[in-house]
Amino acid sequence: MSDLIKIAVDAMGGDGSPKKVIDGIILNHQSNKNNFFKIFGNSEKISNLINGKLNKDFYEIINTDNIVKSTDSPLEGAKRGKDTSMWLAVESVKNRETDIVISAGNTGALLVISKLNLKMIENIDKPALSALWPNKKGMSVVLDLGANIECSSKNLFDFSIMGASLFTSLYPTMKPNIGLLNIGSEEFKGNEIIKETYQILNDKKSNNYDFVGYIEGNELMNGEVNVIVSDGFTGNVALKTAEGTANFITSELKKAMTGTILGKISSILNVSNLKKFKNRLDPRLYNGAIFIGLDSPVVKSHGGTDYIGFSNSLDVCNRIVKGNLIEKIKQNI
Amino acid sequence: MSDLIKIAVDAMGGDGSPKKVIDGIILNHQSNKNNFFKIFGNSEKISNLINGKLNKDFYEIINTDNIVKSTDSPLEGAKRGKDTSMWLAVESVKNRETDIVISAGNTGALLVISKLNLKMIENIDKPALSALWPNKKGMSVVLDLGANIECSSKNLFDFSIMGASLFTSLYPTMKPNIGLLNIGSEEFKGNEIIKETYQILNDKKSNNYDFVGYIEGNELMNGEVNVIVSDGFTGNVALKTAEGTANFITSELKKAMTGTILGKISSILNVSNLKKFKNRLDPRLYNGAIFIGLDSPVVKSHGGTDYIGFSNSLDVCNRIVKGNLIEKIKQNI
Repeated sequence: MSDLIKIAVDAMGGDGSPKKVIDGIILNHQSNKNNFFKIFGNSEKISNLINGKLNKDFYEIINTDNIVKSTDSPLEGAKRGKDTSMWLAVESVKNRETDIVISAGNTGALLVISKLNLKMIENIDKPALSALWPNKKGMSVVLDLGANIECSSKNLFDFSIMGASLFTSLYPTMKPNIGLLNIGSEEFKGNEIIKETYQILNDKKSNNYDFVGYIEGNELMNGEVNVIVSDGFTGNVALKTAEGTANFITSELKKAMTGTILGKISSILNVSNLKKFKNRLDPRLYNGAIFIGLDSPVVKSHGGTDYIGFSNSLDVCNRIVKGNLIEKIKQNI
Repeated sequence: MSDLIKIAVDAMGGDGSPKKVIDGIILNHQSNKNNFFKIFGNSEKISNLINGKLNKDFYEIINTDNIVKSTDSPLEGAKRGKDTSMWLAVESVKNRETDIVISAGNTGALLVISKLNLKMIENIDKPALSALWPNKKGMSVVLDLGANIECSSKNLFDFSIMGASLFTSLYPTMKPNIGLLNIGSEEFKGNEIIKETYQILNDKKSNNYDFVGYIEGNELMNGEVNVIVSDGFTGNVALKTAEGTANFITSELKKAMTGTILGKISSILNVSNLKKFKNRLDPRLYNGAIFIGLDSPVVKSHGGTDYIGFSNSLDVCNRIVKGNLIEKIKQNI
């Protein structure tokens, strides 16, 4: 079993934990037998949930009763001590007992605890929060989503390299196209930092990725670009605006579709197609932000996701380790 | 006819002009007999389009053959001379011959020509580009959408006042709720400029508007806030991301709905509901960005909109003048 990918799992973070975390592990194992789970949290609760459902060759429980709360500020979370399920999970990846760590808990605390325990990759100045985003042709990687409010051109360049490496790890057969999020596609638009980043990326050629130039918000989902780079403030606003827009449109659609008897009947007839549509937009498919730039990968599952979403994040963990993300970043930087 | 609202119209800007502009004027007149149009552009073309379709009491044509091109840089557009249809239209509002000016032409040039001709409202430091945005309960006003990449807290405060005044002009029976676009709803998030703006708005109470605090991108369309304030970079990215997301979702929906015979049949059954849905999201309804902060209002119709969209922008012009926008800003600042 030594060739299994070892995933450190904070079982106690997010809504409905540890049940959704353990159910996610069990579901994930059904489609992928190559993961080993080192699970941190209340061993009694976890045992009750997992016993008889997953072969003991595939997991280990490390007991602790201390947890980071969702209401903690980032620093409060970190100060809860070195025996929280989150801290212990991060420490296990630091000690190379595991290959990657995942938590559905407090995002800010996870970033702080990861930064305290893990080293930066050499020549990377700041870590970034990245995520998968659907587009017309497949998926994109977007970063930074909020770890860094203000960024230098060196930071944005680092994010570009890290994003391209992450994309290749996740989609090994495709070539990353990097786009810089800006407010105009002409070279003269944008602030000085973005213009400098443009020059750096334009001057530095690589066989491992292409630089497409500036893209605007309305091009985020057309599929021409699959690595989208931005400072954390703009990236966070863009991601959440897309979320809010999707929510608004589907609620308007629902209202329109069920407005009349005829509408209701035809919606029932159309149920399989609408389901396909809903599946395509299911946020659980894209669940899992990746904290990137540290010398071990850290995955943040959405706190509100269910066991299916958590299982998908475990799949992302598997692909990141198999894709040698950290090695790829070191080679590209 | 002296109580008519006088609208200066640049007839030569945008795709399909002057036809779409003139058709928009004719359509607008059908529902609103209170507008007088001072139309700037090629008088032969305009006359051919308007003759016999609109009573001469409601318009006047000022002939010029010089136009700002859509491919001009903002400065190139301004340097084409004082006899372009755009310049003359702006000049007429400066000379108080008209109450408001509208163009579907080059946005950058319109901003520059407006700034060259019109004075700032006293105590406003920078003008901003604002627009209407649909939400679950109705409409919001959003600004700045790209006129100012970098903003001080005074600028963001000015935008808040101007946005609230614009909202009241357009929706006289409703009270504006101002929200500051940020990456977290807790008071400690965001950069220093946003935090300062929060303090200013929080300290200054007014009967004319409420300050709701920070909002995140996913709350832009939930209808709790109807005046959304941001720097021009973030606002532009948010608006365009919403546009791109809406486009992505409706194209995925179309794919799903027409994927099978059964889907096609039920979509036909559902046609009136889908039409209602489409109408609700029709961007022509929200057509018209408002350049706000100068002592006369300037409206920018989307270059790509059709005559229906242009007609809706003329309706926005009417409501802005009737609502005494400029006076409201002066009172609130």
